[in-house]
Amino acid sequence: MATGKINVSVENIFPLIKKFLYSDHEIFLRELISNATDATLKLKHLTSIGEAKVEYGKPIIEVKVNKDKKRIHIIDQGIGMTEEEVKKYINEVAFSGAEEFLDKYKDAGKDAGIIGHFGLGFYSAFMVAEKVEIITKSFKDEPAVHWICDGSPEFTLKEAKKKDRGTEIVLHVAEDSTEFLEDSKIRELLTKYNKFMPIPIKFGTRTETLPKPEGAKEDDPAPTKEVDDIINNPNPAWTKQPTDLENDDYKQFYRELYPLQFEEPLFHIHLNVDYPFNLTGILYFPKLTNDLNIQKDRIQLYQNQVFVTDNVEGIVPEFLTMLRGVIDSPDIPLNVSRSYLQADGAVKKISSYITRKVADKLNSLFKNNREDFEQKWNDIKVVIEYGMLSEEKFFEKADKFALYPTVDDKYFTFEELEAKIKDNQTDKDDKLVVLYASDREAQHSYIEAAKAKGYEILLMDSPIVPHLLQKMETSKENLSFVRVDSDHIDNLIKKEDTAISKLSDEEKEKLKGEIEEVVKEKGYTIQMEAMESSASPFIITEPEFMRRMKEMQRTGGGGMFGMGNMPDMYNLIVNTNHELVSEILNTKTAKKRERLINQSLDLARLSKGLLKGEELTKFIARSYDMIK
Amino acid sequence: MATGKINVSVENIFPLIKKFLYSDHEIFLRELISNATDATLKLKHLTSIGEAKVEYGKPIIEVKVNKDKKRIHIIDQGIGMTEEEVKKYINEVAFSGAEEFLDKYKDAGKDAGIIGHFGLGFYSAFMVAEKVEIITKSFKDEPAVHWICDGSPEFTLKEAKKKDRGTEIVLHVAEDSTEFLEDSKIRELLTKYNKFMPIPIKFGTRTETLPKPEGAKEDDPAPTKEVDDIINNPNPAWTKQPTDLENDDYKQFYRELYPLQFEEPLFHIHLNVDYPFNLTGILYFPKLTNDLNIQKDRIQLYQNQVFVTDNVEGIVPEFLTMLRGVIDSPDIPLNVSRSYLQADGAVKKISSYITRKVADKLNSLFKNNREDFEQKWNDIKVVIEYGMLSEEKFFEKADKFALYPTVDDKYFTFEELEAKIKDNQTDKDDKLVVLYASDREAQHSYIEAAKAKGYEILLMDSPIVPHLLQKMETSKENLSFVRVDSDHIDNLIKKEDTAISKLSDEEKEKLKGEIEEVVKEKGYTIQMEAMESSASPFIITEPEFMRRMKEMQRTGGGGMFGMGNMPDMYNLIVNTNHELVSEILNTKTAKKRERLINQSLDLARLSKGLLKGEELTKFIARSYDMIK
Repeated sequence: MATGKINVSVENIFPLIKKFLYSDHEIFLRELISNATDATLKLKHLTSIGEAKVEYGKPIIEVKVNKDKKRIHIIDQGIGMTEEEVKKYINEVAFSGAEEFLDKYKDAGKDAGIIGHFGLGFYSAFMVAEKVEIITKSFKDEPAVHWICDGSPEFTLKEAKKKDRGTEIVLHVAEDSTEFLEDSKIRELLTKYNKFMPIPIKFGTRTETLPKPEGAKEDDPAPTKEVDDIINNPNPAWTKQPTDLENDDYKQFYRELYPLQFEEPLFHIHLNVDYPFNLTGILYFPKLTNDLNIQKDRIQLYQNQVFVTDNVEGIVPEFLTMLRGVIDSPDIPLNVSRSYLQADGAVKKISSYITRKVADKLNSLFKNNREDFEQKWNDIKVVIEYGMLSEEKFFEKADKFALYPTVDDKYFTFEELEAKIKDNQTDKDDKLVVLYASDREAQHSYIEAAKAKGYEILLMDSPIVPHLLQKMETSKENLSFVRVDSDHIDNLIKKEDTAISKLSDEEKEKLKGEIEEVVKEKGYTIQMEAMESSASPFIITEPEFMRRMKEMQRTGGGGMFGMGNMPDMYNLIVNTNHELVSEILNTKTAKKRERLINQSLDLARLSKGLLKGEELTKFIARSYDMIK
Repeated sequence: MATGKINVSVENIFPLIKKFLYSDHEIFLRELISNATDATLKLKHLTSIGEAKVEYGKPIIEVKVNKDKKRIHIIDQGIGMTEEEVKKYINEVAFSGAEEFLDKYKDAGKDAGIIGHFGLGFYSAFMVAEKVEIITKSFKDEPAVHWICDGSPEFTLKEAKKKDRGTEIVLHVAEDSTEFLEDSKIRELLTKYNKFMPIPIKFGTRTETLPKPEGAKEDDPAPTKEVDDIINNPNPAWTKQPTDLENDDYKQFYRELYPLQFEEPLFHIHLNVDYPFNLTGILYFPKLTNDLNIQKDRIQLYQNQVFVTDNVEGIVPEFLTMLRGVIDSPDIPLNVSRSYLQADGAVKKISSYITRKVADKLNSLFKNNREDFEQKWNDIKVVIEYGMLSEEKFFEKADKFALYPTVDDKYFTFEELEAKIKDNQTDKDDKLVVLYASDREAQHSYIEAAKAKGYEILLMDSPIVPHLLQKMETSKENLSFVRVDSDHIDNLIKKEDTAISKLSDEEKEKLKGEIEEVVKEKGYTIQMEAMESSASPFIITEPEFMRRMKEMQRTGGGGMFGMGNMPDMYNLIVNTNHELVSEILNTKTAKKRERLINQSLDLARLSKGLLKGEELTKFIARSYDMIK
C-alpha cells in the first residue's frame, strides 16, 4: 500500500475555469469589483481600528474600457498588495485570502460581512481575458508590484512605478469575449450586479449643466462641466433603518430598482432581522393583474449589496414571488440544489418570517386606513387569495383582512358579510348561502334578479376563485358558495315557502312536451318552475357543482379527473307564471308556437352569452322582421 | 524582474469543483457513466483492431445504490486501468486521458466520436461524495488496483482482489447530497441523461412474467423470473439510417422520448449530415395550438448519445423550437455564451441546414399528399407562419406550400388564391383585395354578406396574423388584406359602379341628424350608404388600419407606438335603401322613432358582439315585450 498526493496539473486550471462556468462568463466583472470593494472596505476597517496609519479619504472604484487596445481596467484605492502578498494570494490558487482576514478580525463583528461570498475571485478574469496584469501598491511603505500572466501557469513579477495606493487589474480581452469591450455591455453588467455596492463605482464621465451665472443673457448657453459618472448608489434604502426613511424615500428607491416602471407601488414592507438569521430588504406590492405567470421573478436577491439572482424560488413563498423589491441576506446558501435549499432550516425560517411580515403589514394597513385598503384591494387580491390557498398560516391570518367585494363595490370581511346576509341568505337547511358572480357584464340579468330579492352578490373574478371557494367551504361550517347563474332565483337559496303556479299540472306537462319538441336537439334539461310573473319567461342555468369542477380542472389541480373536457351542461327553466308562457300554451298554430318558443329561447341564450354565429345572425334577421 | 509558476494549491481543487457547479450537482452521474461508456467503447475498438487479445463479449454498465451504507457504485466491464494508468490519469488532475487516446487512434475515423466531450470527468464525483474509491483491473495481465481518496489531496493506493476486467467506482455520499441515495432520484437521472447511451446500463432488476408451461391449469400462477432492468436503449432511432426505419419505428421512438405524450406526432424529419459538420437527429411536428409560449423546449440536444440540454435556443431557429425530437452533434460548442454561440459559424450552418430540411420536408409532404397536408394544416400552421415571419429564407420557400384556408374549409396556396379571386376581387385601383375573418362565429353576419357577393373569405386566426399580413403586403405588389367587418360590403372592395339611393340627399341629411341625436353619446361615426335593400339596415364596422395596428402592438412589436391603448373606434353604417330605414324616416312620433333606432342599433351591436351587460338585459326585456 502506498499513499501520495494528487498532483493538480496547473496547465489545466484555466480551461477548467472557462469550462465550468458555461454561459455565466459575465460574472467576471462582479467578481473583480467585489474584490476591489473588499480591498477598500478592508482599508476602512484597518484605519478605523488604527492598524493602518493612512487617510481613508473618499475612495472610489474606476472601470475603464479601451476598445482599440482590447483592454478593461478595474482600479481601486484599497489596501493594495505588497510583493509578498501577491506571491501569497495570487500565485497560489487558493481562495483563503478573505478567510484568513476573517479569522484574524472576526471580533470586529458585523464588519465580517465585508468578506466576499462568491469565492470565484480573481481567477474568473481568465474566463474573458487571454492575459491579465495586476499593478498594485500596498498601504504599507513598500514598492509597487507589476504581475503579468498570459493564462499559462508562467507569470512575471517586477517592480512598478505606481505611486497611489490600491490595485489596478488590466484584462487583455480574448477574441471570443470581445462583446465585453462594448461600453454598453459593461454598463449593463455594472447596473445588473453592482448597482448597490457600498463603494462608488465610476464608469466614464457625463456632462452636467450648471446654473447660469448671475447677469447672463437669455440666449447664453448654460455652462457645463464634466463629472464622474457614478454607476451605483452605495447606500440603498434597504441598508438604512426604517425610522430614517420617509414614504417618499421608499418610492424613490422603487424607481431606482425599476427605472422602466412608471406605476408607483401600492405599499412597501421593510424587512430587518438579525436573529436567528440576518436579513434586510424591502418588498413592494405593485398593481397586479389576474395573470399569475407573467409577473414573477421581480424580487432581487443580494448578498452584502452584491446582486446574486432574480430567481428567489424556494426562498420566498411562491405566492409572494409576484411582489417586487430586494432581499439581502448572507445566510442563504447559494451553491446548492433547489431541493437542498427547500430543506434548509435557515431558508425555511426566512420564508416564514417573510410571510408573517407581509400578513402583519396587510393587517395594519387594513386597520389604519380601511378606505385606502379597499381601494387597493383589486390590485393586490391575487396575491392574498393565492396565499390563502397555498399557505395555511397565511390563510388564518388573512381571515382578519381579506375582503369580499360585492358587485356594487361594497367591501366586507367574511365576518361582516356573514352578519349582513345571515337573515336573508340562510336556506331551509340552515346553510349560509353566499351568492357570487364572476363577471358583472356577462351575468348582468342574473345579478339583477338576485338583487331584486335583496341578496348581496360578491364579485369573485380571480382565476383561482373556484379553488378558494372550495377551501372556504371546507374550513368553515355550514357554508356554501353559489354562482348567480347556477339555478333560477327561487332555487339559489331554497326557503320553505312554495310558489303558487298559474298553470295546472296537466297544462305544465303539455307545455313541457311542446317545448321539448322544439328544442330537443339542443341538449337542455327542461324544468317547469312557478316563479314570480315579473321574472323572465325562459332562463338558462348552469349547475354550480359541475361548472366548478370543470373550472378547477382547467386552472390546474383539484376538481374531478377528466371533467375538464366534458361538455357544458345547461338547464332551461320555464317560468310557468309568466304571461308569455301562457301565451305559448294558448297558441294553436304549431308554426307560430314554435316561433314564440325559439325567439324566447334565443333571448334566454343571449342573456347567458350562448347565442353565436349562424344562430345569432338568424335571430337578428328574425328580429328585424318583427320590428317592421 | 522575476518569473515563476503559479502554484495551484491542491487543497482547493475540491471546493472549487463544488462551488463552480451551483445547482448542477446531478451531472456527476452523467460524467461517471460517460467515463464507463468510454472505457467500454475503447475496449471494443482495441479488440476490433486486434490490439487487445480478449473477448469483448456483451458488456454492460451497472449502477447500484446502498442507502444504508450511503454508497453509490458504478461498475463497468471496459478496459480498466493498471496501477501506472491510475497514477497517470487519476492522480494528475488533468483531462488529457481521452485526448491522448484520440491522438493515438485518430485514423480510426468515426470511432473518434467515442471520446467524451464534457471534460469534467471523474472529479465531478467529489461534488456529491466525501470519499471516492476506484477498484479497477486492466484488460492487460496486471494486478487489480484499489485507490481511495477522501477529498483531501492525500490518496492511498493498494492492490485489489478484483478478478473481472473493468472499473468500479464507489461514492461515499456526503451529508448534503443524500438525495442521491434515493432509487427514484438515480432512476430519474439515468433516464434524463443516459437514456440513449450506447452501452446497456443496468439499475436493479425487475420481475418478468413468463408464458405458462404446457398443461398448466387455469388457476396456476404464471411463472416469473428476475431480469436485469436495463435503463437505456443503446441504439436509438436517430443513430440508424433512414432507409432502415419504417414509419412505425419513428412513432415508437417518439413514445420513447415522450412517454407521457399520448398524441402521435404528425410527421417527422430525419436529419443526417457529415459535412461540413456532423449532425444526426429526428424532429417531429406535434399538434400545436395557437399559444406560442408554452410549447417550447421540447427538443433534446445530445452529444454522442449523451443528453446535454433541452434548451436549444441559438442552435435551432426560434420558430422551430416548438417542434419536438432529438439533435445529436459533437460540433456544437457547449461552454460558451449565447451571444458567442449565435456568432459561431458552425452553429449558423447547422441552424440553416435544419431550416432547409424542414422546408424541404413540408414541400414534399404538400406535393405527395396534398389532402393529408391540408388536414394537418391547422395543427402545424403556427410554426410555418411564425417561420415565414422570422426567417426570410423560409418565407421564400414557404410560398410553395403555405396554405390559406377559407371559412368554407377550402385550402389555397397563395398562387391558387390569386388565380381564383383576381377577377372578382380586384378593386378599381387594380389592387387585389384578400378578405379574411379571424373568427367564424363572431363575424358570421359579415362573412355571409361577403359570401353573397361571391367573395372568398380566408380564415386567419393565429395570433401573429396581423404581422404576417403586413409582411405579405410589403413583399407582394398591389395586394391588400381586409377583414370582413372593417367596412360595409360595397366598400370592402371598391368597384366603379355606384349604387342608386332610394333617399334624396335632403332625406339622408335629415335621417342622419335624427340618428345622431339618438346615438350621439355612443361615439359612432355615422355613414349613410346606398346599399342593396337586402343588406342589413344598420351595420357596425371597425376600420382595418387602426384595428390591425392595435393588434400588432398587443401581440408585441410592430404597429405604431401607443396605439395599443387607444379606445376601439367604430363606424355605424346606415343602409339608406333598406325598408326599415325608410320606415324610421317616415315615423313621425319621436318616441317611436327613437325606439326603432335603438332596437336597430342594438341588433347591429349584437351582430358585432358589442351588446353587453345592462344594455343587453334592457334589450332582452324590450324584445320580450315586442313578442307579446
